[in-house]
Order: sequence, then C-alpha cells, then structure tokens
Amino acid sequence: MTAKTNESRPPGGGNLTWHRHSVTRGGREKQNRHRGATLWFTGLSGSGKSTLANAVAAELHHRGIRTYVLDGDNVRHGLNKDLGFSPQERVENIRRIGEVARLFTDAGLINLTAFISPYREDRALARSLQPEDFIEVHVDADVATCESRDPKGLYRKARAGEISNFTGIDAPYEAPENPEVRVNTSRNSVEECVAQVVAALEEKGIVPGNMNKAPEEE
Amino acid sequence: MTAKTNESRPPGGGNLTWHRHSVTRGGREKQNRHRGATLWFTGLSGSGKSTLANAVAAELHHRGIRTYVLDGDNVRHGLNKDLGFSPQERVENIRRIGEVARLFTDAGLINLTAFISPYREDRALARSLQPEDFIEVHVDADVATCESRDPKGLYRKARAGEISNFTGIDAPYEAPENPEVRVNTSRNSVEECVAQVVAALEEKGIVPGNMNKAPEEE
Repeated sequence: MTAKTNESRPPGGGNLTWHRHSVTRGGREKQNRHRGATLWFTGLSGSGKSTLANAVAAELHHRGIRTYVLDGDNVRHGLNKDLGFSPQERVENIRRIGEVARLFTDAGLINLTAFISPYREDRALARSLQPEDFIEVHVDADVATCESRDPKGLYRKARAGEISNFTGIDAPYEAPENPEVRVNTSRNSVEECVAQVVAALEEKGIVPGNMNKAPEEE
Repeated sequence: MTAKTNESRPPGGGNLTWHRHSVTRGGREKQNRHRGATLWFTGLSGSGKSTLANAVAAELHHRGIRTYVLDGDNVRHGLNKDLGFSPQERVENIRRIGEVARLFTDAGLINLTAFISPYREDRALARSLQPEDFIEVHVDADVATCESRDPKGLYRKARAGEISNFTGIDAPYEAPENPEVRVNTSRNSVEECVAQVVAALEEKGIVPGNMNKAPEEE
C-alpha cells in the first residue's frame, strides 16, 4: 500500500471515508498520454468497416495507444443478444452501443465501433451522448463494390430473397452528410484509409503525432 | 504510418485485406503490463461498495494500472436508463452490467462494478460470462451499521414505508458463499479493505507486486 493518509473510519459505524481522490477521466487520459474518443465507423455491409476499424486500432496500438473495437462479434452475441432486427430493436441496438462507447471514452480509450448503423437519426443519438468525443467515419464504397466482395455471402442471399430489409438492396443507407472523416475503400487501399483516419486524430489533438516508437512498446 | 506491409487491395473491387494482425486481448494486456479482470463488489446499500471500488481503483491507478469503475452514476442513467426495478428488469440490469464488464476485461482493464446485486443467481450469471476473470468481493457490513451510515437516506425512507423492496429491510440480500474476497467495513478501515483486495489481485497474478512507482507515473 502506498496510501499516504492515515484516514480511517472509527470501527463499528460512521461514514466510510477515503481521502485519495477518485480517478477522473483526466487522470486516466494523463496516464495513457492520449485522449479518449469514439471512432464511429458506418457504411454498407462489405464496405470494410470492421477491417478498417481493426487496422486503425492496430496502428494506434503499435504507437502505444489504448484501443478497443466494438463490433458484431463482441456485442451482438453478448450485450445485445436479446435484440432482434425490428425497427425498435435496431434503435435500441445502436443506443446501447452508443452508451457503451461513451463508457469506453470516459475510461480513456480510443474505442472504434463497426456497425452498419444505416440511419442518420440513430447515429445522431449516439453522437449526442458524447458530442465532443465522437468522430464519425463514413466508410464509403458503392454497392457494386461491396456486393462483389460479399464477405459474408449476404448480398447473394438478399438478391435471392432469402433475407429481407438488407441495407443497400431493399433497405436504405442514409450516408452521413458531414462526417468528421470520409474514406473511400473502392478507390483507396487500407493503408491509405488508415492514414487518413489517424491523421484526423492527430489534427484534433486526440493522439500525439507519430514518434515511431512508443515508450511502452517492447 | 509505420505499416511495414505494402499490401494493398486492387482499386475497385476484391476483398479488403490488411496484414498487420488485429490487436488481441493478450496484446493489450502486454501493453498495460497487467491482466484484465472484473472486481464485482456486492453488498448492502451503505456497505461501502462504491467508496471501496473507487479507493481500490485509485490505489491501482497510482501504480500505473488501467482501471474503470462501473456504478449507478454512469450505468443507471445511461445504458440501463430504460430499466425499472421489476424482478425481470433487475435481472436485465445485472446481465448488461456483466456483459459490459466482460468487454472491459477483454479491453485489458481492471474494471470494478459497484452494485448491490443481492441475488446469487444474478451474480452467478455475471460470473458465467467470464469465469476466469471474475473476482467477487463481498463488502460485508451488518444492516445496523449500514443503516447508521445511510448515505442516501434510503433506509430512513424504507423504514417510513416510502420505498418498498429495499434490500436488507423488506427484500433479501443473499450473501456470497464463496467470494474470492470478503472485506468487513464495520470492523476495518477503508485502507485495510483496499489492501486486502489489492493483495488478492497480486496473489492471483492479475497485477504485479507494488514497486512503489510505476514507470508511467508522473
């Protein structure tokens, strides 16, 4: 124990007291040497949201930055496993992701969410929870490109009528009008898109400029 | 950009590829120099859960460890603000907290939850989500002590019949039978209880022994 106070509650009653201050968001950010923020990746299925979120996280991690990716793998089968795909549940899905993202920002991490999140209104709700720390990244790629990739075979199923309300086929995708970052994965490589996102974080002062080797890197 | 690969997808189609590996939990833990884990504080209202969780977090933070406290302040008014206090909603409240705690563990943080969580079954569910990384801390204090503290004036209201189903008064508290740690805040000071929790983390190899000054400490 390094506690310097000799503060102690009298046994048997009274209020619990503790004079070392609670850890604040500022304290966590100082410890991490970067700010907490949410990178909200939005785009069609197959646009490369998850690939890009993971690639940005890897680049930041390499620089000694604390990151965490929230995506279908760790959210849909856990926190949101009680939710289906009705309009109401779709809204609740994005609301909860937005709330969890806010907690991760408060924890001082760069958190990256990778969900189609096709509706402006839902993304606006997620943004409203932490307007100062919300970076919307539009992962832009035309439907033809996404359909040609079809990493999960979902476009094929949607075209065959096996699934309905599929974004870009028979459900709308409302592209962001003023995202903080827009990358085009039809035209640019993953490296180029990663560089673009990381440059935006540097410009906003969320992460320090690249110094090639973070002090904690082995 | 420090990317070493010159991997890039041909423009206009094909799959997005990225050859730097995604960040794993192990990678994050190596970066942090400690393991991720959940410290699940359970006990009566007024037992000192939140005080103790924050004090443990402060002690760990002082050692350069990454922490985050989940409590009523940041969860009840955010992620779980749609939930009331019916039996079903009570279960869902704890389930979601357990799922979020699991995400924070996966992110490599020592996360500390401070909720009464009076039912063994609910705590067992939270534990089942991450059995290897779940440290149950029973914050033990008799009802008389908690009632004498009554930090939120809730015991007074419960006695006056203004609120019902209040744990310890007219609703049961099912004490843990085999918690990883049991602290007694009626008999011991906050410092003593903190030391007991931190010692348990050291013994389990979750955090390194105290070296007085963490490398990142200012």
